[in-house]
Amino acid sequence: MSRTIITLTTDFGLQSTYAGVMKGLIYSLAPEALPVDLTHQVQPQNVMEGAFLLYTAYNQFPPGTIHVAVVDPGVGTARRGIVIHVPEVGYFVGPDNGLFTYILDTYANLTVREITNPAFMRHPVSHTFHGRDVFAPTAALLAKRQAFEEVGSLVDRDTLDRITSPWGKRKRKNGKLIGLWGEVVHIDSFGNLITNLSEVLFEELGQGLVETATVNVYGGTRKIDPFLEVKGIRQTYGQANSGDLIALFGSSGFLEIARVNGRADKHEEFQIKTTCQVRVKL
Amino acid sequence: MSRTIITLTTDFGLQSTYAGVMKGLIYSLAPEALPVDLTHQVQPQNVMEGAFLLYTAYNQFPPGTIHVAVVDPGVGTARRGIVIHVPEVGYFVGPDNGLFTYILDTYANLTVREITNPAFMRHPVSHTFHGRDVFAPTAALLAKRQAFEEVGSLVDRDTLDRITSPWGKRKRKNGKLIGLWGEVVHIDSFGNLITNLSEVLFEELGQGLVETATVNVYGGTRKIDPFLEVKGIRQTYGQANSGDLIALFGSSGFLEIARVNGRADKHEEFQIKTTCQVRVKL
Amino acid sequence: MSRTIITLTTDFGLQSTYAGVMKGLIYSLAPEALPVDLTHQVQPQNVMEGAFLLYTAYNQFPPGTIHVAVVDPGVGTARRGIVIHVPEVGYFVGPDNGLFTYILDTYANLTVREITNPAFMRHPVSHTFHGRDVFAPTAALLAKRQAFEEVGSLVDRDTLDRITSPWGKRKRKNGKLIGLWGEVVHIDSFGNLITNLSEVLFEELGQGLVETATVNVYGGTRKIDPFLEVKGIRQTYGQANSGDLIALFGSSGFLEIARVNGRADKHEEFQIKTTCQVRVKL
Repeated sequence: MSRTIITLTTDFGLQSTYAGVMKGLIYSLAPEALPVDLTHQVQPQNVMEGAFLLYTAYNQFPPGTIHVAVVDPGVGTARRGIVIHVPEVGYFVGPDNGLFTYILDTYANLTVREITNPAFMRHPVSHTFHGRDVFAPTAALLAKRQAFEEVGSLVDRDTLDRITSPWGKRKRKNGKLIGLWGEVVHIDSFGNLITNLSEVLFEELGQGLVETATVNVYGGTRKIDPFLEVKGIRQTYGQANSGDLIALFGSSGFLEIARVNGRADKHEEFQIKTTCQVRVKL
Repeated sequence: MSRTIITLTTDFGLQSTYAGVMKGLIYSLAPEALPVDLTHQVQPQNVMEGAFLLYTAYNQFPPGTIHVAVVDPGVGTARRGIVIHVPEVGYFVGPDNGLFTYILDTYANLTVREITNPAFMRHPVSHTFHGRDVFAPTAALLAKRQAFEEVGSLVDRDTLDRITSPWGKRKRKNGKLIGLWGEVVHIDSFGNLITNLSEVLFEELGQGLVETATVNVYGGTRKIDPFLEVKGIRQTYGQANSGDLIALFGSSGFLEIARVNGRADKHEEFQIKTTCQVRVKL
Repeated sequence: MSRTIITLTTDFGLQSTYAGVMKGLIYSLAPEALPVDLTHQVQPQNVMEGAFLLYTAYNQFPPGTIHVAVVDPGVGTARRGIVIHVPEVGYFVGPDNGLFTYILDTYANLTVREITNPAFMRHPVSHTFHGRDVFAPTAALLAKRQAFEEVGSLVDRDTLDRITSPWGKRKRKNGKLIGLWGEVVHIDSFGNLITNLSEVLFEELGQGLVETATVNVYGGTRKIDPFLEVKGIRQTYGQANSGDLIALFGSSGFLEIARVNGRADKHEEFQIKTTCQVRVKL
């Protein structure tokens, strides 16, 4: 039998031992479990980025994998800890704060339970580190085949907290679609600006409109002048010249803005950050 | 039988392959061992931070775990390499430079040996990388159940190098306790300033004194004006407003200073660093 | 039987889930494989640094290890994906862009195949992420003992792409050796400047010449005034004073420049970067 994988997605960084501590607890409770880092460098407290990064990675893992995500600004408050079970996919463990919005939107058939059984926790439960005290032990016990039913009571999926606009928004004027508005939700090591605008959203537009659309990135508070403007969305890097800013659909099927042989995030006068607005104008 | 875990705590960073090389050597010598990163981002050469991070993480791991710590400014000099055996806990492997001060202070019953047996080393032993040449092979052989006695001769624990003031200091005036002085020993990804002042130290003071104490953080050389001042130590974040600086006991039981929904380390005029002084005034 | 190790060396960083996704795919295809990070923090697109870091780490791993390296500025173009098999060492998997130059220079007896068999790929193969779509699945299948012959056709090793000057250059004047020119190819967490000038290159010079050689580091475009100058190459740190800049051969046998109890990369007026030139003058 192969070992049950427990993926970890957090904003704990790697300069602390928080992630290591979660692994220690997992190995103590479930020696045969296999923790795997997705990332511990979600921007601190950025639930949107955490949700997005989990969504673009979880489905490369084998069925039955347990995905723990901890980006948890509300730790210590009344927000719930939950487990979502998706048959043939696995479990998702973490705070009920929107981290699993994309998962909820992807699966009609899933079951949610609140983590209330003290047997699934390390005691005393701290006010500040439920990754260690609630989510790691819950994942470890699930990996040991402790029954999901014992975690706690069923939760109605419609009561779960959600991210606002996880997929961006369609903008209409007089009933006509004039644009798609989204957000830079992640910037990778190459300086690529990855948005939450999915390729699927563009499919209904037809290839012609996509090729001529204008992509703008806005920042700051007034959002009048765009930082960046790119004309047209391309299929590949191949057609562009070194130094060009281009827009294309990345390896996870989301729109991203890249600079060929360079970075799209750093500019002399400004720096693009996650949460910058993106507007695609048709 | 479950695999023996070898935790790694170093200041090697992740941009180099030093940590990966240690794992390669461990797998080569002990295929059934299981290396687990605690952190490789201890501040370069900061033995205090390394000692503290190890101390706040090691006890989440199963009994028998081998903890390797390498923050080693004295590599290549006459400082000893040691193994500490703590029954029912495991082994601690690294340089004799204070990295294990907290472990020594925690356990009365332990045995220390100097690593002198060439069979526990990779040859030739370099002047600069004992993580690879001494500590990883020693850990690997211990994981393979090579006898601890073979590592080298017994060392008197009282001769081991120690960190100065690992737990901070009590300040008295005319015999009366007037304060507790410590240090920011770690800053986490959220900008929380984590000090070496343990909750235990405050217990004798009584809740009233703790609630009214003033916490100051000092930096620079003259240490006259504090960078930060926080009135009172709280139980939880719950009682504070967004933007407030607060002092509370963190998930490992040490005093930390945090900014609610923000960072406590970055300020317009100054930046708090590990090694900044912390003074709690009663 | 012990698990087959798959090492990963990339420029993906750790803020994204690209490395985690590769592991997910590996575990999905080959549950008994064991991915191990060498580093994911090669400078973006820096093939030289990736090649060097792989070279200084791979040989600590057990025979049969599969080494995947992805620093891949040409992804999506016509550059080939390859597997190199070195008997008694293992496999090297990645783009044909020079990443394996040091390996090619080290082994006379090796076999190269181009990855063309669709069974070794995840479909659809994206334009931008062959780490996930080509190299991870290839490594996973090799770990499962799928025959190397099935990867694709044989490639003549002499047709493989190479790094320019992987080992630096000998400079001669009137037939007489006057210096060795190389490059800072990596800077570690301690600020040590690690060059591609191997100790082996110096052996023919004799100890006297080495001890009196001058090491200069140049940057910028004009390369007239050196940033740094160090007189003599030492055996160990031991002979130097705190604050001194020194040159010595590091733990992998390459010349490095270090500052005793400090950093050699950061200076008031300039910062040393990888790709800075190094000239050793005899």
